[in-house]
This record gives sequence, C-alpha cells and structure tokens, in this order.
Amino acid sequence: MSDFVLDPRLDRDTTLLTKLGLCQLRLMEDSRWPWVLLVPQRDGITEIFDMTPLDQTMLTFETAITAQALKQATDCLKVNTGALGNQVRQFHLHIIARTEGDPAWPGPVWGHGQATPWDANARAKFTERLLEAL
Amino acid sequence: MSDFVLDPRLDRDTTLLTKLGLCQLRLMEDSRWPWVLLVPQRDGITEIFDMTPLDQTMLTFETAITAQALKQATDCLKVNTGALGNQVRQFHLHIIARTEGDPAWPGPVWGHGQATPWDANARAKFTERLLEAL
Repeated sequence: MSDFVLDPRLDRDTTLLTKLGLCQLRLMEDSRWPWVLLVPQRDGITEIFDMTPLDQTMLTFETAITAQALKQATDCLKVNTGALGNQVRQFHLHIIARTEGDPAWPGPVWGHGQATPWDANARAKFTERLLEAL
Repeated sequence: MSDFVLDPRLDRDTTLLTKLGLCQLRLMEDSRWPWVLLVPQRDGITEIFDMTPLDQTMLTFETAITAQALKQATDCLKVNTGALGNQVRQFHLHIIARTEGDPAWPGPVWGHGQATPWDANARAKFTERLLEAL
C-alpha cells in the first residue's frame, strides 16, 4: 500500500472517514445524498479486473458491509453502487443511499446538477451514525 | 436456484446470452452501448448484502471476467459497472463498455434517451465476440 496516492480530484471532492482492510471509506462532499466512496489503497488500479482475486473479494466484503451500514444509518429505500471512472481513472466505487423523491430519483446521481455542501452538524451526525453502524 | 424467476421488465429489456455459475449473463436490447447484465439466479435478492458471502464472491468473480471479456471484445476505453435497482428491485448488475464520445459520455448511461434496437448482424457479431472472450 505504500505506493498508493489518492487522485487529486477524489481528494478534493471527498473526505476520509476511516480505513477498512483494503479501502479508504470517504464521504462525498455533497449533502443531497448520503454518498460514500470506497477507494482500494492499491496503485494503478482502473478496472475491477486489475485487482488480485483476494483484493476483489475484500472489495466485495467491504462493499457489502458499507452498503448495509448505509442502509441502517439512513433507512433508505435502495442502495446504489457503481464504479464508472469515466472522469477519474483511479478505481473508486460509489455507494449511495437513495429514497423515493430524492433530487435525482429514480435516475442515477452521477452528473445530476451541482453538489450542495454539507451543513457541519448534519455532516457530523451522519458520519457518526454511519461509523457506528459499520 | 429452482425458485428463481426473472423480473418481467428485465425479461423484456434483455436477452439471455449464457448462464455462468451464479448469474445469467444477459444482453441489454440497446445498441448504443455494448451493455450486459449479470442477474444472480437467487430468489429475493435486492441488495448485495442480501447474498451469502459465497454468492457475493461468485458475483465479483463473474463481474471481473465479464468486464474483462467486454473490454477485450470491444476495445473500449472504460468499463462501467453499477447496481442501482431504483426501478427494478430484483438484483442486477450492469456492465457497460464506454468510449470517449459515446452518446452519454462521460455521464452515466442510465436514463439517457431512448434505447436503439440492435441490427441483427451487429448483435450476432458482438455476442459471438463477447462469448469467445469469456
């Protein structure tokens, strides 16, 4: 992991919440949705098949526990997950809590309007709930 | 797997290409992108954490080999993967070949315009290439 350097755009748009076994768990700086990222701390990964089978399995495990914690912390209707990477090539997986009537419902959140900054209190409260649920 | 019944909308919008160990590999009936779905043949799965750890691992493995085959068959720039399920609750994972300048680039494909039917020859050619690469 010593070679891992976070992409500057991911660094700008997200904040580290905690480190799991493989991934950094990062909060998207957009309060319109409870939205986190998993970023495997490995250098040079763009596609899921660039990872070793063990890392793929770790990523899946960390995806499942994060998705479950997000559902528990938000009581959302549906969790969305996605790894696009059209704009930022460093592999990152989005995990987003969706609710009927949210700003992009039922469409995808990516590319929808402009990010809304978090209110500091709401941010702290959400983060605490999510980390407790993990 | 005997209880597995494919959601009617997935059945309408996609066509079975082959069955992998866990999932049906299905072609999206939209020629704008080389776009396939993995649908685990398990009843009652909505979220990734509804699956057993073994099924999660199988899904990851099948995702990686399908994504790699799609990249090889299309020579695309980036593979996108996503499990949304806002409209169809039965768990299904999208795997899409993306290229700079494609109809939705660099945004997501979901919810973008109307599907374009495949030309029969192009469809057969793509399917053959993909299955060979698998």
